[in-house]
Amino acid sequence: MTKTNTGNFFEDFRLGQTIRHATPRTVTAGDQALYTALYGSRFVVPSSDAFARALGYGAAPIDDLLAFHIVFGKTVPDISLNAVANLGYADGRFVAPVYPGDTLSTASEVIGLKETSSGKTGIVYVRSTGTNQRGETVMSYVRWVMVRKRDEGAPAPDPVTPDLPEAVAAADLVPPAGLDLAAYDLDAAGSPHLWGDYAVGEKIDHIDGMTVEEAEHQIATRLYQNTAKVHFNQHVEGQGRFGRRLVYGGHAISTARALSFNGLANAFAIGAINAGAHANPVFAGVTLYAWSEILDKAETSAPGVGALRVRTVATKDRACADFPLKGEDGKYDPAVVLDLDYWVFMPKR
Amino acid sequence: MTKTNTGNFFEDFRLGQTIRHATPRTVTAGDQALYTALYGSRFVVPSSDAFARALGYGAAPIDDLLAFHIVFGKTVPDISLNAVANLGYADGRFVAPVYPGDTLSTASEVIGLKETSSGKTGIVYVRSTGTNQRGETVMSYVRWVMVRKRDEGAPAPDPVTPDLPEAVAAADLVPPAGLDLAAYDLDAAGSPHLWGDYAVGEKIDHIDGMTVEEAEHQIATRLYQNTAKVHFNQHVEGQGRFGRRLVYGGHAISTARALSFNGLANAFAIGAINAGAHANPVFAGVTLYAWSEILDKAETSAPGVGALRVRTVATKDRACADFPLKGEDGKYDPAVVLDLDYWVFMPKR
Amino acid sequence: MTKTNTGNFFEDFRLGQTIRHATPRTVTAGDQALYTALYGSRFVVPSSDAFARALGYGAAPIDDLLAFHIVFGKTVPDISLNAVANLGYADGRFVAPVYPGDTLSTASEVIGLKETSSGKTGIVYVRSTGTNQRGETVMSYVRWVMVRKRDEGAPAPDPVTPDLPEAVAAADLVPPAGLDLAAYDLDAAGSPHLWGDYAVGEKIDHIDGMTVEEAEHQIATRLYQNTAKVHFNQHVEGQGRFGRRLVYGGHAISTARALSFNGLANAFAIGAINAGAHANPVFAGVTLYAWSEILDKAETSAPGVGALRVRTVATKDRACADFPLKGEDGKYDPAVVLDLDYWVFMPKR
Repeated sequence: MTKTNTGNFFEDFRLGQTIRHATPRTVTAGDQALYTALYGSRFVVPSSDAFARALGYGAAPIDDLLAFHIVFGKTVPDISLNAVANLGYADGRFVAPVYPGDTLSTASEVIGLKETSSGKTGIVYVRSTGTNQRGETVMSYVRWVMVRKRDEGAPAPDPVTPDLPEAVAAADLVPPAGLDLAAYDLDAAGSPHLWGDYAVGEKIDHIDGMTVEEAEHQIATRLYQNTAKVHFNQHVEGQGRFGRRLVYGGHAISTARALSFNGLANAFAIGAINAGAHANPVFAGVTLYAWSEILDKAETSAPGVGALRVRTVATKDRACADFPLKGEDGKYDPAVVLDLDYWVFMPKR
Repeated sequence: MTKTNTGNFFEDFRLGQTIRHATPRTVTAGDQALYTALYGSRFVVPSSDAFARALGYGAAPIDDLLAFHIVFGKTVPDISLNAVANLGYADGRFVAPVYPGDTLSTASEVIGLKETSSGKTGIVYVRSTGTNQRGETVMSYVRWVMVRKRDEGAPAPDPVTPDLPEAVAAADLVPPAGLDLAAYDLDAAGSPHLWGDYAVGEKIDHIDGMTVEEAEHQIATRLYQNTAKVHFNQHVEGQGRFGRRLVYGGHAISTARALSFNGLANAFAIGAINAGAHANPVFAGVTLYAWSEILDKAETSAPGVGALRVRTVATKDRACADFPLKGEDGKYDPAVVLDLDYWVFMPKR
Repeated sequence: MTKTNTGNFFEDFRLGQTIRHATPRTVTAGDQALYTALYGSRFVVPSSDAFARALGYGAAPIDDLLAFHIVFGKTVPDISLNAVANLGYADGRFVAPVYPGDTLSTASEVIGLKETSSGKTGIVYVRSTGTNQRGETVMSYVRWVMVRKRDEGAPAPDPVTPDLPEAVAAADLVPPAGLDLAAYDLDAAGSPHLWGDYAVGEKIDHIDGMTVEEAEHQIATRLYQNTAKVHFNQHVEGQGRFGRRLVYGGHAISTARALSFNGLANAFAIGAINAGAHANPVFAGVTLYAWSEILDKAETSAPGVGALRVRTVATKDRACADFPLKGEDGKYDPAVVLDLDYWVFMPKR
């Protein structure tokens, strides 16, 4: 019996099956430092113990997306090692802060299966849940991937497609417990613009650009213990479709979030990921830009904390003053690499 | 009203104005690990808790220059986003160690303003002060930058140029409080050469070279949350004056300091930065070298602690056996990238 | 007297001499985070405090090889700055876990000296020992290097070649004290294959490849405070034998160990390094692969802990499905870069 992991193929998944993923990971101030260095994020809450404690956090929490990438990375060897495409995300909920010293584990439940018409692949829907060392859920999200079949002759399962929300309902958002934003310091946070200052439909060009280097995306993706082969092996990818290593989609997400500080500085935490598309591939050498649109606004259950539903779009080698998104044909502009729909928390006046 | 930061222009600054900068930053062992990995510094005090405690420190302090870069980085969005040139540093004083867990904030006071003869730019002098979470000053320094005017027709302010010392007086140096160097171990520190062994005028070639990579300077500069655009955006810089991203000047300072271990190993802490010039630009791909000259020697108020005033010069793609500095025309040798004048502390016998 | 370290030459070493190396180094969670990011290692014990504590560790220990590289790095300025070649390792024993917060120091004893027939160089054998801040040995190993003579006319010492074991005896392995593997969770660890499932002679292709970048190996090697010039100076190496910087051999060791997770996931700790050869040089740009052979199996003194003696071979730009090693001439295949013989600990059923 081979001792190496060849990953699951489409016919290996069973509806309702739960997979406990390796490897539990203690997240530390070291991970946070490296995350800061990889993206230059300046959001104040993960940056400052003093600031975070003044709001009622136990300490500066780990950046929400660092926690997400670590939770996500664990699923790769079991869910998407034989994936042809990462099709989508939905219903991603960030329900508890992760602090340095917490140990994250991930389990995934198979909630949908549908063979594709080609008979060579199938779509697998999983809900992945990240928990800490006390067994508390810190986040969960659904993603679906197109996975190869090992044996094209394997019978198709009964097709089951889960019912997924277009977005997490504002009422389901879970702001960090016990926050009191009275001490929120706008100078320290970097912007005077609060929740009430943003209007639905408003678009913001985040202006700055960030060039991606091979060493950077590899370091990031390994930090998340994400083992997807396409990010790391130039010897194989050099002969492949793109002739180059593909940058982990999450690297673009984190870069776009960091760039969005310039315009959304007070979006101090992420509440949900509603949907996300990696519209075009990212390679080392490109410069990423981003712009955002306010899709919705909502009150939350926490006093003083509002929620903004934001679409952040990232592009490669193209500035975003004109908010590029899709062409007349309804397809993404070739420069667009990311279209992310998510909720953030922001102080109210 | 735009929500993105377009930075201050010359006419936005007022004499006596104080700017509190975003983002407060808790500095951790993770930042120190990354700093070590970026420069390979081997100075013993920031490297070893055990060694540092034996001298009376609370723990291994964060490297002085890591703290400096973090304090400095915060000023960029407010002071130098529209800068044409970083003209100089003066009167930089390191007055308290920074320990892992400390949160650094920076504020700057405008201490001088002078429009240039072109009428298109002006020189802004600021004193920037870094404080910890207890409000204690850890360092302060003056820098001056040439900043664009938004509107060339804006009236010139009364010119005020601050009176700046050529160097911090030895009597004003503040060695870390409560040090007892009796336990200072020369084998562990890496050199038998102590304060008394250095002579004013002595020059030291630090021999080793260190090649700069794009990923490295970007990771470093983001670690400091320094947002200056020229370091990160190849898409724009590729069309610019140099065709390349410019390496943050502080990256050369830290590289030179790390190289200077080979010859100044017992310079266990920095006391002051007297002056600094980034003589020529640094780009990824160059190899940095360094040499130093002892400019002055002084006693300090701390028993057993001497001070050396050092000039460290860094070059690119040029070894320093012949101590390159300036040509006969008084201009810097084209290979010289840094000319830094600073005080270090070193044990006396 | 020059204040820069020019390193020891062959005639500077004396049999029985002990050299205490600079710089003591506190190893932190920050170092471990960076190590994870550089290699993507997923072995569970260094990854998770919760998992490690459940087995009886005080916390997640620092990765064994990170500790090794730090202990090793300190020896470079004194032992191998003037080395022509790193000839071998033997009798490497990992005898105590290293935890975040521990401070590592290294001392080396000269245990053998033999001038080579050319009269220009000599072989220096040292036993290097890493200790923590309590003076406890954490590891020791022998290495031998060919070192230049300063003066070819210097007299040859009496040749002394130490008696070195082909491998550390299984009876001499020191599993971490006080372990109880009852709580060892195979799902979390990432593989169902335990000690009893491996057979002597079994070969495992670790499948995955990892491309090496200049920034990565430089960051790694500086993290270890290893100052060997050939890794860092393109200005000089560009004119040298290879035209490029040489990657630190330990970088290939750590990459191979991380790749070996896919097939040896439950090899939760390293017990010994028996021998190691850097068969061919590694340069940035190559993709490393690895395969392993089980050389031996042994019980250990710890209940539930077995030991596997493993040969792990790393290659460059060549997949390992056919287990490349040596040609018919007995010489290493040109693609082989590492041949490492070591003991790992693995749970028994």
